[in-house]
Amino acid sequence: MDLEFLQGLAVPARTKMAMIIMDGLGGLPLEPGGKTELETAHTPNLDALAAQSALGLTVPAGPGISPGSGPGHLGIFGYDPIRYEIGRGALEALGVDFDLRPDDVAARGNFCTVDAAGVVTDRRAGRLPTEVSRELASLLRGIQIDGVEFFVETVKEHRFALVMRGPGLGEALTDTDPHQAGLPPLPVRALEPGSEKAARLANRFIDQARELLAGHRPRAATNMILLRGFDRLPKVPAYQDLFGLRAAAIAVNGMYRGVARLVGMTVLDLDGVTPVDEFAALEKSWGDFDFFYLHFKKTDTAGESGDFAGKVRAIEEVDGLLPRLTALKSDVIIVSGDHSSPAVLKSHSWHPVPTLLYGKIVRADGIAEFGERACARGSLGMLAAKDVMPIALANAQRLTKFGA
Amino acid sequence: MDLEFLQGLAVPARTKMAMIIMDGLGGLPLEPGGKTELETAHTPNLDALAAQSALGLTVPAGPGISPGSGPGHLGIFGYDPIRYEIGRGALEALGVDFDLRPDDVAARGNFCTVDAAGVVTDRRAGRLPTEVSRELASLLRGIQIDGVEFFVETVKEHRFALVMRGPGLGEALTDTDPHQAGLPPLPVRALEPGSEKAARLANRFIDQARELLAGHRPRAATNMILLRGFDRLPKVPAYQDLFGLRAAAIAVNGMYRGVARLVGMTVLDLDGVTPVDEFAALEKSWGDFDFFYLHFKKTDTAGESGDFAGKVRAIEEVDGLLPRLTALKSDVIIVSGDHSSPAVLKSHSWHPVPTLLYGKIVRADGIAEFGERACARGSLGMLAAKDVMPIALANAQRLTKFGA
Repeated sequence: MDLEFLQGLAVPARTKMAMIIMDGLGGLPLEPGGKTELETAHTPNLDALAAQSALGLTVPAGPGISPGSGPGHLGIFGYDPIRYEIGRGALEALGVDFDLRPDDVAARGNFCTVDAAGVVTDRRAGRLPTEVSRELASLLRGIQIDGVEFFVETVKEHRFALVMRGPGLGEALTDTDPHQAGLPPLPVRALEPGSEKAARLANRFIDQARELLAGHRPRAATNMILLRGFDRLPKVPAYQDLFGLRAAAIAVNGMYRGVARLVGMTVLDLDGVTPVDEFAALEKSWGDFDFFYLHFKKTDTAGESGDFAGKVRAIEEVDGLLPRLTALKSDVIIVSGDHSSPAVLKSHSWHPVPTLLYGKIVRADGIAEFGERACARGSLGMLAAKDVMPIALANAQRLTKFGA
Repeated sequence: MDLEFLQGLAVPARTKMAMIIMDGLGGLPLEPGGKTELETAHTPNLDALAAQSALGLTVPAGPGISPGSGPGHLGIFGYDPIRYEIGRGALEALGVDFDLRPDDVAARGNFCTVDAAGVVTDRRAGRLPTEVSRELASLLRGIQIDGVEFFVETVKEHRFALVMRGPGLGEALTDTDPHQAGLPPLPVRALEPGSEKAARLANRFIDQARELLAGHRPRAATNMILLRGFDRLPKVPAYQDLFGLRAAAIAVNGMYRGVARLVGMTVLDLDGVTPVDEFAALEKSWGDFDFFYLHFKKTDTAGESGDFAGKVRAIEEVDGLLPRLTALKSDVIIVSGDHSSPAVLKSHSWHPVPTLLYGKIVRADGIAEFGERACARGSLGMLAAKDVMPIALANAQRLTKFGA
């Protein structure tokens, strides 16, 4: 079912929808036969909501696919993440909360070390400290060549995001990163004629960067940059246009704020970085939007670092705050994750994600528990993450009848 | 999986299949946590059949989509209802049991009132009584222009179906209905060259209709017609060609008889309009066909009018007659609906539909209950309605092995 078809059925309504995403929610037991993080967590509020909900397990991008945060979010937002792929350069820029625009061309960058012959000796310049990296980024930021602006945004240690902004830039560009030491950086090459201008300007930017780095701290180990993963944002139809939804995003980290912006959500300012601050922002803006996306990061951070107990605590923290959402009487509530991050794997995984759909006219399963095995018994069954949004819209009475 | 692929696997067999469709079968409880209409109904025969069946929940057109009867039926008949869309004009003609042919162009019509300047003052001519509408329709029926026949079939009150039959007619035509009073009717315009002949003839038909109405009852309030939703039947491959099935339809209402005819079923004559008459027709014709579709309307009528108890009774009525089908020893029996029509919503809905697949070699779930939550636990899981038919054909040993 494609988005255009759905768009044709969307009708206005005054209903409210809220989507709680606990990043990397799905998990695994520490020992075979044991409980997952979510099953271990004491979640009286989620369990009570589950009893009035339809439950299921969502597959973010496809069977067996462990998605990154970009595709994981696009999926639960209702988009096919394989069709709307967010490339690495664009993700890097979104990740630092850069306001990436549709025509910007972005790349991932490294500060690196080359020898006198120009051969890369260290692709990461000794993993230089983030503070040094910020200093060097500000040195390179603001370069303009032939009317094209270059933005250099520090990510962490040696990593930065490069964004080129200006007319007529294509993104079909090759990496300069040789991907191993002992080789010289490669020139940027255009893979199609429409990207030749961008290739030429990127190479001139690299030349200027080398000179600026050499002049800044002569004989320093950080004397060159490497670029890879040039791309642009995919053209994603926006919530407002698709569904007539005024949507707001409540998220702390740049990546999630960026993906929300990509689908046309208004990213709200927060007074702090805790879940309490996020729920406070929800309450404050409740009257102003139809749809709210709330993102909670700690579940994934704990999962990726192998901290089973920390992930349990992060789930319990969100559960403890849930009454602040339910008190708002949202017509529809979705609780899910963008993917699984089992602590035992210390990484994202392909495991389907526990998902709860509450609504006043949902056909509730009567299962008073929110967990992986409870969701496996739910009436939503195993479903593609992108199919959750249409069902949620239907429950919000925002889709009209198809055919007579 | 497309129909051509299935067609390539179809093999002849002597098995019999029966599909019971209770229109709008799926429901919701009156109170959260309560029982749905189907769960409330006392259905000993369906429950006994369920015990020997595989159960599941079918999604008629797509997640979150509330289908009309046309797409709902195409889905459970095995077709993708989004691909084979039946337009409004064609549906209107099918709905009055008109034998619409593949090349006919159909539209929805209204009798209306225009003032002396030709401006529409009432789009529904005061919702004129159906009997008057029939009189006016017979006045316009039988108009022929340049070898094209015009059929005018009363629907109800001011509504009629117009069908144009003749060579070289396209259906890419605009509405004459201005969709609000205070504007004059629009001329029919062709949206592509292949529809120019049809546009010209439709406009001449409208001129003749106006003259006939004026001459019939001078100064009457019903003095003009409005047309909208011109279209043709989609080209749907027929059961006989796809699966080698001699299929019969047992249905009272025109819409269902029409959709059955569209997929190549023989629509049987009935001695009356009750479920008893329908089962009698089944018994009488049992030897003559491979596949029987039986349609029961009351479940939907009750659901759409918010009559929970009436829907329960309608289900119980079908349950009471079910032994007349099981006595025939059908190899495969499907019991499902074309969509849900929960009484609490008083409308069609997107909720998945309880579905039972009985067969001698089905892998039975051993769940002795036919209801929404029982089906949610069934081994068919949540599946697209169009996938039921291939599984049913397999159980009827009408599909051969794919590959070696």
